[in-house]
Amino acid sequence: MNEDQYMNLALSLAQSAAHQTSPNPPVGAVVVKDGRILGMGAHLKAGEAHAEVNALAQAGDESKDADIYVTLEPCAHFGKTPPCADLIIEKGIRRVFIAAVDPNPLVGGKGIEKLQAAGIEVKTGICEQKATELLTPFFHFIQTKRPYVTIKTAVTADGKTAAHTGHSRWITSEAAREDVHLLRSRHDAILTGIGTVLLDNPLLTSRLPQGGKNPIRILLDTHLRVPLDFHIIQNKEAKTIIFCAADAQTKKQRALEDEGVTVIRLPYMAIDAVLDELGKMNIMTLFVEAGAEMNASFLDIGAFNRLVMYMAPKLIGGKSAPSSFGGLGGSSMDEALDLAFISMDRIGPDLKIVMEKR
Amino acid sequence: MNEDQYMNLALSLAQSAAHQTSPNPPVGAVVVKDGRILGMGAHLKAGEAHAEVNALAQAGDESKDADIYVTLEPCAHFGKTPPCADLIIEKGIRRVFIAAVDPNPLVGGKGIEKLQAAGIEVKTGICEQKATELLTPFFHFIQTKRPYVTIKTAVTADGKTAAHTGHSRWITSEAAREDVHLLRSRHDAILTGIGTVLLDNPLLTSRLPQGGKNPIRILLDTHLRVPLDFHIIQNKEAKTIIFCAADAQTKKQRALEDEGVTVIRLPYMAIDAVLDELGKMNIMTLFVEAGAEMNASFLDIGAFNRLVMYMAPKLIGGKSAPSSFGGLGGSSMDEALDLAFISMDRIGPDLKIVMEKR
Repeated sequence: MNEDQYMNLALSLAQSAAHQTSPNPPVGAVVVKDGRILGMGAHLKAGEAHAEVNALAQAGDESKDADIYVTLEPCAHFGKTPPCADLIIEKGIRRVFIAAVDPNPLVGGKGIEKLQAAGIEVKTGICEQKATELLTPFFHFIQTKRPYVTIKTAVTADGKTAAHTGHSRWITSEAAREDVHLLRSRHDAILTGIGTVLLDNPLLTSRLPQGGKNPIRILLDTHLRVPLDFHIIQNKEAKTIIFCAADAQTKKQRALEDEGVTVIRLPYMAIDAVLDELGKMNIMTLFVEAGAEMNASFLDIGAFNRLVMYMAPKLIGGKSAPSSFGGLGGSSMDEALDLAFISMDRIGPDLKIVMEKR
Repeated sequence: MNEDQYMNLALSLAQSAAHQTSPNPPVGAVVVKDGRILGMGAHLKAGEAHAEVNALAQAGDESKDADIYVTLEPCAHFGKTPPCADLIIEKGIRRVFIAAVDPNPLVGGKGIEKLQAAGIEVKTGICEQKATELLTPFFHFIQTKRPYVTIKTAVTADGKTAAHTGHSRWITSEAAREDVHLLRSRHDAILTGIGTVLLDNPLLTSRLPQGGKNPIRILLDTHLRVPLDFHIIQNKEAKTIIFCAADAQTKKQRALEDEGVTVIRLPYMAIDAVLDELGKMNIMTLFVEAGAEMNASFLDIGAFNRLVMYMAPKLIGGKSAPSSFGGLGGSSMDEALDLAFISMDRIGPDLKIVMEKR
């Protein structure tokens, strides 16, 4: 195996646990000596061992004079665990191969400096693009202190999210809907609006045959209109946090809190303020499953990173049938928000099209 | 080369001239003896030689005891040219390989019968699916006596065909727009509505760097509102046919006819009636580039075969921004018209998604 192959292995390890490390980055590491793999590991959970620690522990005493492949620059600071750079030096590693350099201001090149100062050979940039893609939500979170936001839509081939009557069950196939549940399980939180909740009374849990983590449910409900007997309040499989306006009823707030719901009053209801609060809670990835008006609020301020669109091969028609982004919208095509197509896949009879904001 | 490879070659020949044979089918033929290709040919234009005639002429005297690969069953009837089955017999061909059997009631297996009666070995079904796909518009035309209809739309990622103000230039990239011109050149006729013409004053010609045939322009204009100085009337690069209602002004009709335009009065303005008329004119393929209401008229009666959607990676938003299919639309998702995704391709920054009615 060559450098790229070892790093790709480390990236696979990182990828496999990518949804369970928030607010830490997904990282993988492989320890190699004389063409033999001595240890493999990934960061599995915030607060627990980093990838390097797991891989080096597996390698044990054999680590001396070995090489280590790490998908992200080893840390040089004391966080919840001691600096990995120190451990690498202590174990007598000969060479360190790094995919991506850490943009975290607490790390930013300092890990590399420390390793080099100890006489260790450091090589960066191996599989850098792939590593950067995997780390995109983390980098976004570190740099903006806000979650990486993915908006999900499910539309007909004529771009409608429902018939003109509001009927929308179901647009996409069971296979596509299961993929949505998988995406839910890979996010820290899921956000929706009171309009969608009043219309559909959704559970917003990840119901996967193989099981899966439930994201925290975030509800934007300016006037605390959500009925107490709705799923999002009564179902205790996932935590629910409601954002409301400063003047929402305190009595309703207490009733919701009695149900175990967290209620956060905002001086003003705006997507910006909500994202700031979610960042403070260490929510690194946010999945938005909402209606056209909520989506438009995100679009208006460009406050999202990715759009995942499920498209069913059917036409419903209807001039007044809703589409995925409402609001007033831009006045001319020059005002449109530019995205880029990242991937297109078939899921059952449907298409899954992923776009990123440019 | 084996049977499939010879037939694939014949299919390539057919494909290359597929847009210039209406109302005849695209057909290709290859003459082979002892592993050597003796002649190749395609049907190039209605009224002129069939594929078999071209390929056999190329093979000349060597045709005796050779095999012929034909993408469509050879004809057994006298049309504008003598029956190909007779020619094949006369030339002393040993075996005939056929991809698709002709559903034309004038042919329907009779070519095969005639060949077999003359002692020629006939094998059918080689590359049949590929041949059938290529012949789909022809088969549709033969069976329904109406053109094979392709609706084209160009939308933002949120399914809009314009901003709420009506502004729509341009949604897609230059590369995607050039692809539209290519599609225009591959159709016998292009149809639009008076709304689109009054809004955009389009030329509706195929403006390709390499040149290309212009389709006949079909305008649905119930009350003959089209201004005489508009491109669709003044531009003489393509023929224009206007369908209007029985009570449209005769004075305006005469003025249009003085400009070389054909005006057809219908007892009632309906897509069905228009398609019947176009079928009578031997228009085998129709490209619809129209607005949401016209598209909805086609959707309402399911009177189209294919949807080609160009999607730009941008979001414009807008609750009242138009989408590709208007009208009233279905009331519930069960009423949606089912399609199937056929292909997805990137064209510059955009996507081209092709769907077929199921």
